[in-house]
Amino acid sequence: MSHPNLKAETICQVGIIVHDIERTAQKYCEVFGFPPPQIVETAGFAQSKTTYNGQPSEATAKLAFFNAGQVTIELIQPDEKPSVWREFLEQHGEGVHHIAFQIKDTEAVTGYLAENGAGIAQQGLYSDGSGVYTYVDTGPLLGTMFELLENFPRS
Amino acid sequence: MSHPNLKAETICQVGIIVHDIERTAQKYCEVFGFPPPQIVETAGFAQSKTTYNGQPSEATAKLAFFNAGQVTIELIQPDEKPSVWREFLEQHGEGVHHIAFQIKDTEAVTGYLAENGAGIAQQGLYSDGSGVYTYVDTGPLLGTMFELLENFPRS
Repeated sequence: MSHPNLKAETICQVGIIVHDIERTAQKYCEVFGFPPPQIVETAGFAQSKTTYNGQPSEATAKLAFFNAGQVTIELIQPDEKPSVWREFLEQHGEGVHHIAFQIKDTEAVTGYLAENGAGIAQQGLYSDGSGVYTYVDTGPLLGTMFELLENFPRS
Repeated sequence: MSHPNLKAETICQVGIIVHDIERTAQKYCEVFGFPPPQIVETAGFAQSKTTYNGQPSEATAKLAFFNAGQVTIELIQPDEKPSVWREFLEQHGEGVHHIAFQIKDTEAVTGYLAENGAGIAQQGLYSDGSGVYTYVDTGPLLGTMFELLENFPRS
């Protein structure tokens, strides 16, 4: 029983955790000929409303994005505070942390995944407030973490 | 200095290592509504000419593929023999093992990546002999392993 709002064709991002985003981003530029990306830092709780394992969190990360057609390659350098990103870096070292899907109705999809045994690990607003991301503990079910990305309708 | 045969837009696959491919494939079918995939087993050295760290290898894996638009989600269950897959499973557990790119001229691209410090980790022919895959040790450079996929011209 799949959910109509979660389609494999909406895969839109592969997120890679790294130690040093400036260094790795430069390597991506060298290997693929990308122009230098903007490196953005996510906001703290007051703005992002980030929760990690259900609790408010001040954890942030530096992010860089590379456009690769349907898919964006996202580099993530976490700060030292507890987060899904920091947890992954400490347990696994650098590597692919998640696959992201563009969805509608985060509540419906997270409810559906929770019924399948995969709860919410971390959630927060985009830095510009234009949407919400949700990391779901799909690892035991699907072999890796999934991220759900929902853009809010523009008013 | 990027290589013209290695373009980010040719990203075509995300490969996930799992312990039990039948179980995980079934979960993907449940979550995304996929029909049950064919699970194929890669061939031994005589047919695949697999090399691992430069040495002939009899390692095999069970594979399943799900079509997700530009990208295919590949599940991989390695056998017990040494391979990049088995190495990953033992070091990291289940997770995303590689990002694959469709390329032309494997020799040119692997030569280019070798100049950038990323050598060949494993290489072999597709089970049906229609192409060649190459895993390249891009982890230290780019945060994850890359796979290069080259389809041979049809004669």
